Amino acid sequence: MEVYFDNSATTKVSPSVQELVVKVMTEDFGNPSSMHLVGVEAEKYIKTAQENIAKTLKVDPKEIYFTSGGTESNNMAIIGSARANQRSGKRILTTAVEHSSVGATMKYLEEEGFEVIYLPVDSFGVVKMEALQEAMTEETILVSIIHVNNEVGAIQPIEEIGTYIKKVNPKVVFHVDAIQSYGKMEIRPKNCKIDLLSVSGHKIHGPKGSGFIYIKKNTKINPIIFGGGQQMGLRSGTENVPGIAGIGQAAKDCYDHLEENVQHITEVKDYMIDALNTLEGVTVNSRKGEAGAPHIVSASFSGVRSEVLLHALEDKGVYISAGSACSSNKPAISSTLKAMGVEKELLDSTVRFSFCEWNTKEEVDYAVEQLQQLLPMLRKYVRR
Amino acid sequence: MEVYFDNSATTKVSPSVQELVVKVMTEDFGNPSSMHLVGVEAEKYIKTAQENIAKTLKVDPKEIYFTSGGTESNNMAIIGSARANQRSGKRILTTAVEHSSVGATMKYLEEEGFEVIYLPVDSFGVVKMEALQEAMTEETILVSIIHVNNEVGAIQPIEEIGTYIKKVNPKVVFHVDAIQSYGKMEIRPKNCKIDLLSVSGHKIHGPKGSGFIYIKKNTKINPIIFGGGQQMGLRSGTENVPGIAGIGQAAKDCYDHLEENVQHITEVKDYMIDALNTLEGVTVNSRKGEAGAPHIVSASFSGVRSEVLLHALEDKGVYISAGSACSSNKPAISSTLKAMGVEKELLDSTVRFSFCEWNTKEEVDYAVEQLQQLLPMLRKYVRR
Repeated sequence: MEVYFDNSATTKVSPSVQELVVKVMTEDFGNPSSMHLVGVEAEKYIKTAQENIAKTLKVDPKEIYFTSGGTESNNMAIIGSARANQRSGKRILTTAVEHSSVGATMKYLEEEGFEVIYLPVDSFGVVKMEALQEAMTEETILVSIIHVNNEVGAIQPIEEIGTYIKKVNPKVVFHVDAIQSYGKMEIRPKNCKIDLLSVSGHKIHGPKGSGFIYIKKNTKINPIIFGGGQQMGLRSGTENVPGIAGIGQAAKDCYDHLEENVQHITEVKDYMIDALNTLEGVTVNSRKGEAGAPHIVSASFSGVRSEVLLHALEDKGVYISAGSACSSNKPAISSTLKAMGVEKELLDSTVRFSFCEWNTKEEVDYAVEQLQQLLPMLRKYVRR
Repeated sequence: MEVYFDNSATTKVSPSVQELVVKVMTEDFGNPSSMHLVGVEAEKYIKTAQENIAKTLKVDPKEIYFTSGGTESNNMAIIGSARANQRSGKRILTTAVEHSSVGATMKYLEEEGFEVIYLPVDSFGVVKMEALQEAMTEETILVSIIHVNNEVGAIQPIEEIGTYIKKVNPKVVFHVDAIQSYGKMEIRPKNCKIDLLSVSGHKIHGPKGSGFIYIKKNTKINPIIFGGGQQMGLRSGTENVPGIAGIGQAAKDCYDHLEENVQHITEVKDYMIDALNTLEGVTVNSRKGEAGAPHIVSASFSGVRSEVLLHALEDKGVYISAGSACSSNKPAISSTLKAMGVEKELLDSTVRFSFCEWNTKEEVDYAVEQLQQLLPMLRKYVRR
C-alpha cells in the first residue's frame, strides 16, 4: 500500500487542473501582452482565474495578483509593503511560528534596518493576544501572521488580530500567510481587515510554480520584481498562464466542495489523532476538530529520531514529513515546536502527517499498523 | 491560414515538453525538499534539467539555478549582484537597447543610489565599443548586456565586451540577458567571461513560468527571494518541478537540433526580408544571415500605424507584434528603435515578425501577400 500523508508539503495535481494546464500550454499558448487574438485568448484565462479566486474570498477580481508561488507571495507582501511604508515607521510584528518564507524575509528586513518583533505563542502554537497588544504601536507599519501553522496546524485568531491592530493604527498593513489555510476553511479578508493574503497553488492540487496574492485596493505596496509592467505594474514578467489557469481551477474545485472536503479530512485527522493517542510514548501536538486545521497532525515519538521514523515508514510506503519539509534538505530544529514549548528531547522526534480529501481512514489504519510494528524496534535500536 | 509570427513574444509548448510536464505533475509530483521517495524522485528531474542545460552551455550543472522566468532571472542577476558588490562601487553599465526587465530594474537601482550608464548603439542596434571602453572604470561593479535584442534581433559582441571589461576590472560581474539568443545560437559563458546568464523557458517551446540563471561558481550574488533555502539558498521556494523538467527538455531539444533549426529559421528570415524589400515604403531594421538573430525581423511601414497593421494582419490570421509585446498592453514608443536612430515618423510604424523552427516559407508568402493587399488600403485610410 502507498500512503501519501505529506499533503502540506505538496499535493498531486488534480485531473481538472491537469487538463486545463495542457489545454493552455498547447492550444491557447499566447502571451497575454500580445495585442492579437492569440494573446487576447490567453488573457481570458487570467481574468477567469481572478474571478474564480475572488469568489472564494468575496473580494474584487482586480485585487488578485499572480506570483510564482507562496514564497514569492510572502516576500512580495512583506518586502513590498515594508518598503512602501517605511517613511511611516520601521516596526514590524510577526510571530515566532512563521514559515521560513516569512521568517527569512524578516531577517532580510532586519538587515535593512527594520525592527521586527516575534510574538510568542502558547503551547498550542496560538499567538498570545496580550503580547500582540503590548507590541502593537502607532508606528507599526506591518503585521504579518501565519493563518494556519504549517508544522502543527495551529489556527491564529486573524479576525481578532486584524480588528485590534487596525484600531491602534488604521494605516498598518495586515498580511496573512494563508498558504496552509486556503482551501481548507472560509477566509474573509474584509471581515478580518486583511490587506494582503498569500496563497500557493501546489498545496491545493494546483500546479507548482503558481501562487497568488490578494492585495486590497489602495494598499501601499511596491513591486519586488521589475520589468514590462504586467499585472498593473505590481508583478512584471510574462504571466504563467497555464499555472494561473491551474490555480484558478484548483481554487474553484476546493471551494465548490469545501464543506464535504473539510468534514472528510477532519474525520481522517481525528481518527489519526485517536489512534496515535492509543500508542505508548506518543504526544500529539495538534488539536482535534475545529480547534486545529483539518489536515495537519504533528506528533512526537519519544525515543525515536524523526528522520529515522520517516525513513522506516517510507520503507512501508507511508510518506510523511519530519518537521515542515518546506525548507531545503538540511534538517534543523523546528522553531515552531520550540516556541510552543515542546520538550527538548522531543524536538527531534516530531513528525507531521498531512492529509488531503483523497486520503482515507483505511490509509490511517495502515499507517498506524506500521507504527505499532516499527516503534518498539526503532526504540530498541536507538537505545543501543 | 493561421500564421503565428510572434515567437519572440512566446512559443507553443512542444509535445515532448508537454508530455514531461504532465508526467511530473501527476505521477512524480513530490516536493523535492521532502526526504522520502516521492520527494527524491521529484528532485531527480531538477538534476536532469541542470545537466541538460549545463551541456548546452558547457558549464557545471551546479551553476544552473531555476527561476520563474526571464524577468525574475534578470532581476535576480542585476539586483542580486548589485547588492552583493555595492561595497566595491555603485557604477553599473548597460545599453540603451535592453528589455524592460533590465531597464526597469536599472531604474529601481538608480532610486537605490546606484549610478547606471546606458551605452549608445549604432544604427543596427549594436553597442558602440568606444562608448563601452570610455564608460568602463575600475569602480564598475556590474555590466549587463542583452545578447540578442528582442525588438530587432541585433547581436551584441558579448565575447569582445566580456574580454574587455574583465581586463579593466577582473572583479566586475558580467551579466548577459540571453532570453532571445538561447536556443538560437551557441553560447559559451566561459569563453565570453560571463558570470550571470538569464534564460526564459517559454521562448523556446518550454513552459511559461520557467526560467534559469547561470551563475558562475564563486560569483558574488545575493538572493532576492528569501525562505526555505532551496537551490543553495539562492532561490527559495518549492521548486516548480514540472516547469524545471520542461525547460530542461526544451533546452535539450533546441540544442540537439540547433544547426538544422537555425539554418531553417535563417532561411525563413532571409526570405521574409527579401520579400519585404520588394514592397514600397518598407524599411527593414534587421539584418540578413548571421549578421542578425535568425528569428527576428523588424520592419517599418511608412504611413501605417503599427497597431493598425497588427490588427489588419490579425484579421487575416497573421499574428505579429507591434514593438516588443513583452511589456504590458499600453503601447509606448520603443527606446530601442529610438536609440538606433530610426526616423521619428517610423517609430510608431514598426512591427516585429518572429519565427520558430516550425514556421515555413509558405507562411511568409501568405503574410507578404496580405501585406501587399493591405498596405495601399491602410495608407489611404491614414491619409484621409
